[in-house]
Amino acid sequence: MLSSRLQEVLDGRWAHVRKSARAELAGDKFVAVPGETIDQARERVTRLLRELPADPGVAAGFPIEYGGQSDPGGSVVAAEMLAQIDLSLMVKAGVQWGLFGGAVVALGTEHHYDRYLRDIISADLLGCFAMTETGHGSDVQQLRTTCVYDPATQTFDLHTPHEAARKDYIGNAARDGRMAVVFAQLVTGGRSYGVHAWLVPIRDDEGNPLPGVTIGDDGHKAGLLGVDNGRLSFDHVTVPRDMLLDRYGQVAPDGAYSSSIDNDVRRFFTMLGTLVRGRVVVGGSAANAAKSALTIAVRYGESRRQFTAPGETREIALNDYLAHQRVLGINLAHAYALHFAQDELVSTLHEAQTADSPAGEHQQRELESRAAGLKAAQTWHATRAIQAAREACGGAGYLAENRLPGLKADTDVFTTFEGDNTVLLQLVAKGLLTGYRDAFGSLDGWGRATFVAEQVRSLVLERTAARGLIQRLIDAVPGRDEEVALTDRGWHLALFEDREKHLLEGAVRRLRNGAAQKKARQFDIFNDVQDHVLETARAHIDRIVLEAFVAGIDRTADDEARALLAKVADLYALSTIEANKGWYLEHQRLMPARSKAVTAMVNDLLRQLRPHFTTLVDAFAIPDEWLDAAILREEPARQTTMAEHDVAGR
Amino acid sequence: MLSSRLQEVLDGRWAHVRKSARAELAGDKFVAVPGETIDQARERVTRLLRELPADPGVAAGFPIEYGGQSDPGGSVVAAEMLAQIDLSLMVKAGVQWGLFGGAVVALGTEHHYDRYLRDIISADLLGCFAMTETGHGSDVQQLRTTCVYDPATQTFDLHTPHEAARKDYIGNAARDGRMAVVFAQLVTGGRSYGVHAWLVPIRDDEGNPLPGVTIGDDGHKAGLLGVDNGRLSFDHVTVPRDMLLDRYGQVAPDGAYSSSIDNDVRRFFTMLGTLVRGRVVVGGSAANAAKSALTIAVRYGESRRQFTAPGETREIALNDYLAHQRVLGINLAHAYALHFAQDELVSTLHEAQTADSPAGEHQQRELESRAAGLKAAQTWHATRAIQAAREACGGAGYLAENRLPGLKADTDVFTTFEGDNTVLLQLVAKGLLTGYRDAFGSLDGWGRATFVAEQVRSLVLERTAARGLIQRLIDAVPGRDEEVALTDRGWHLALFEDREKHLLEGAVRRLRNGAAQKKARQFDIFNDVQDHVLETARAHIDRIVLEAFVAGIDRTADDEARALLAKVADLYALSTIEANKGWYLEHQRLMPARSKAVTAMVNDLLRQLRPHFTTLVDAFAIPDEWLDAAILREEPARQTTMAEHDVAGR
Repeated sequence: MLSSRLQEVLDGRWAHVRKSARAELAGDKFVAVPGETIDQARERVTRLLRELPADPGVAAGFPIEYGGQSDPGGSVVAAEMLAQIDLSLMVKAGVQWGLFGGAVVALGTEHHYDRYLRDIISADLLGCFAMTETGHGSDVQQLRTTCVYDPATQTFDLHTPHEAARKDYIGNAARDGRMAVVFAQLVTGGRSYGVHAWLVPIRDDEGNPLPGVTIGDDGHKAGLLGVDNGRLSFDHVTVPRDMLLDRYGQVAPDGAYSSSIDNDVRRFFTMLGTLVRGRVVVGGSAANAAKSALTIAVRYGESRRQFTAPGETREIALNDYLAHQRVLGINLAHAYALHFAQDELVSTLHEAQTADSPAGEHQQRELESRAAGLKAAQTWHATRAIQAAREACGGAGYLAENRLPGLKADTDVFTTFEGDNTVLLQLVAKGLLTGYRDAFGSLDGWGRATFVAEQVRSLVLERTAARGLIQRLIDAVPGRDEEVALTDRGWHLALFEDREKHLLEGAVRRLRNGAAQKKARQFDIFNDVQDHVLETARAHIDRIVLEAFVAGIDRTADDEARALLAKVADLYALSTIEANKGWYLEHQRLMPARSKAVTAMVNDLLRQLRPHFTTLVDAFAIPDEWLDAAILREEPARQTTMAEHDVAGR
Repeated sequence: MLSSRLQEVLDGRWAHVRKSARAELAGDKFVAVPGETIDQARERVTRLLRELPADPGVAAGFPIEYGGQSDPGGSVVAAEMLAQIDLSLMVKAGVQWGLFGGAVVALGTEHHYDRYLRDIISADLLGCFAMTETGHGSDVQQLRTTCVYDPATQTFDLHTPHEAARKDYIGNAARDGRMAVVFAQLVTGGRSYGVHAWLVPIRDDEGNPLPGVTIGDDGHKAGLLGVDNGRLSFDHVTVPRDMLLDRYGQVAPDGAYSSSIDNDVRRFFTMLGTLVRGRVVVGGSAANAAKSALTIAVRYGESRRQFTAPGETREIALNDYLAHQRVLGINLAHAYALHFAQDELVSTLHEAQTADSPAGEHQQRELESRAAGLKAAQTWHATRAIQAAREACGGAGYLAENRLPGLKADTDVFTTFEGDNTVLLQLVAKGLLTGYRDAFGSLDGWGRATFVAEQVRSLVLERTAARGLIQRLIDAVPGRDEEVALTDRGWHLALFEDREKHLLEGAVRRLRNGAAQKKARQFDIFNDVQDHVLETARAHIDRIVLEAFVAGIDRTADDEARALLAKVADLYALSTIEANKGWYLEHQRLMPARSKAVTAMVNDLLRQLRPHFTTLVDAFAIPDEWLDAAILREEPARQTTMAEHDVAGR
């Protein structure tokens, strides 16, 4: 069947992990339960966390020597699969193994692994990743929690100086965590060395907060009720010296600080960079959850009928309406495009994290930029697509039994955590602006306008996927648009590239001009062009996604699958061009007649793809018990009641 | 204070109702409670329904003689105020008094009023509006429930022939309703006369379903947990003849049918048309709820700071970021524009429903079209604006204690009930296509393409608001764009009008061409241009909204308020033009240079309006207890902690 062959393509390099998940987590045992109280959800998710099969699992990324599988790619894909079962369970697993355990591995050293890693992997030791503070979520360089070393006692004093410095939104804090990786400003010898991390016990074996530790509860949330988000405050808590996670910075017994990285800011961002896997997980998980929503909406739209057409007796299926096709079809095309981009990113991450030697700085920055951009793109896609799926399913979409409310509520915060999407777009944009001084090595944070103005120059756009193929396609495009078919892939790529390049050059020019003017605030140099800068980032992400899609199609051996994917890619490319036709027309990269033809072609592609909607969602291969939507379980019997033209309707 | 003077303008004609609500419903007694179970929510909302003050109230629309105030406008505004307190309570009140009681008044006659109206108004008799079926929500002409008259017993037999015909999503059904207005196909003398309505008891005084009545529960929903939506099925239930709501169609004891309207379809749509108030309520309520979300987000954005600018020590307030201003400012401008449009619609409705003689057909169709369009516009605005507000508030926006999750979940279904928004846009579009045969008098439903093709002609665009002023502004616009200021109101109006006119003419032309071709399905004549038709409707709605805003500003006496509103209207107009720049450039109604200037002006307007964001939301005058957001209650004390540059942050 075509859908099975398509599924092979989508399942990709870690197909064994996906198939294993569908088998091992079959049925409804792990599936989200609508209508739970917060306590019921927390209890169920914590219990099920411990019943998850280890293999494959979110803990697959840990070193083999400690019980993991040294398979970072596998751990990401395992999390993505959990996202189609219960997003609370996925986040809980991500917090435990990705963030808490992941931080111990990335920032700690062997003595930490020896003491804690096995218990973390087995979930006997549940823990938190305590970075975000009430006052600082995005600008984590400015965390206010302090940890001051006292050589006399060879201990640190961990302290929350005021309420806004309390750790907030911390998963595993409100109910379960016994330890936390706590991020704070390291002070020794009277000087601060910037943010570091310590492994800090927060509860005793009976579950009571340890002395000096205050634990609060974030309470009811829009979704993710199974994740016990809470608050942590420390009142001069004593932390032994050896609990500093000391991979990147060490404090000797006498209090002397040492590090292989001299610059405090660079060191901090290097540490942060090791946590990139969390962003890759969050992006892919959100996109996978969106596939569930689109599957439900497409299948519902096949059977749900409303209004009769002139000259017909049977009511019209929702999927037959052009407006419905535009909503579901275009979102499906984005789902496919992003799937290939995520696929490629996971591979890149896996290679980087399993290489014999550590990644070079350029490679690491590229990975961080790609992870940031695709996290933003996939989580925004998920939020918009799931909203659209709910509206497409009308009143049925509003009932919890049809799953869409839970998917929407649970994924909603994915645009915020693991990096606020707008801040991430800025990170991507800055990566495109070369010439940053090394002090701003990694790209989180604001940066200084003067440096940008002095040193920035246009970056020759780098390609990562199928370089040769893509360059050949672009080179083959005739000079005049009128001679090019609307479905010419080279033309699509050229248009995407032109937009990115032009926006980038424009951003550089405007920043330079802004720096040359006398503005009231230096802040205004960046702020006055912030929308342009963010648009540049979006254009860049659109291009890398299309390139990944093209590369993925190129690797597809099956002819029929390839042909169908090519059409979906046409729809992705042309609907993206259509959405940006204002820009293209404004910059005279599209002429009015061709612009109108783009819309006509999008509609035509939807008509061509409509008969394949079911195949396209079947290829996601989401088990029915995971979808768990009542409207999909309904008996077909009621559609054959005699004397009725139509039974199912809108 | 400017915000008070602005509030006067916004409070408008029914200011006394708004002020009364803020006073009588002060405090947190009626406010939504996050984290309730479904049973807790239902119990609380039903209890509070009975404690709502009668004056002003959602029941104000009932005739004075029966305990109402014959004030339809007042009842709409009362519902809009409830939307800022608890949307479940607002919907429950709307179901009870607007739908159930409203249907009894609109479709019934005096003997029904005498028996039931007082108890309905006092909420002693809780009831349902049972129109929607599982199989038919939008195409209610095709309801499958039947009600067959038997002259021998002088009773009707009300029957649900199969599962898809059960009444579904019915508020007041699952728990509380003792009677229902049930819509079904009236059959007498062996012939069907189309859909009519009966008043049918469904529960006895102990709360048990009556014989033949099966009551189901829709269960947990995304939101509106306080509304007990359920399902009703009838197994040959006997209904006395006098329980037919017989204003528009009567059945004599011998079974003879009579009606002042001969045509079945026309009669049905006339009946439906009397229920237009529900759409006006839903649109205005959604928009009012969005004001709560925008107020929370704007105030949070004033105090919340993150990232330091070069050369400064204080972190930057979120509202200082251009990207943040674009999101909040443009949504605020839409909120203001829609407010004036809704204001005007409520007045129009009130005039129509309190006139001595019934509205002429043209006036009634206009009212229905306006109600449909503004229902779609305001509910989509609310869903998008509340989503944007949640994202703008980051992690804090995800906590139930900050109110945004509840606002989002509760308003989400407003784009679906009281008319699916896409179907409503089609209704608006068809109203613009003149020449429909009388058989399609009211505009719900699909219509026949052949009639459209034969008879349609362009409609001279009608203005409703401030006709003279608007025509003068448009006439004053010079021929060449280059000579016109970007903030010239006449230019805005001309551009909005051009887009509507051009889209409408294009739709007519394409429908004619389509009808002339040999299409596989007649359905395709409409379907191939459905996106164009919907866009025509959107352009129409944009124009009437702008005209209402212009008229509202013209009526504003206070100079400072007027000036500020004019800037907000500039932002509304230019951001809408910006959002449609693809269309404008494609049709060469904007040249590239001017198009770029539009974006620059939008950004400039945002900079100018940013210092007034607080004033603009203060003018909504939403009591703090109604906003009920923890982040707005936080003590300012923590912002002055010594030795900290900044406390509140992102």
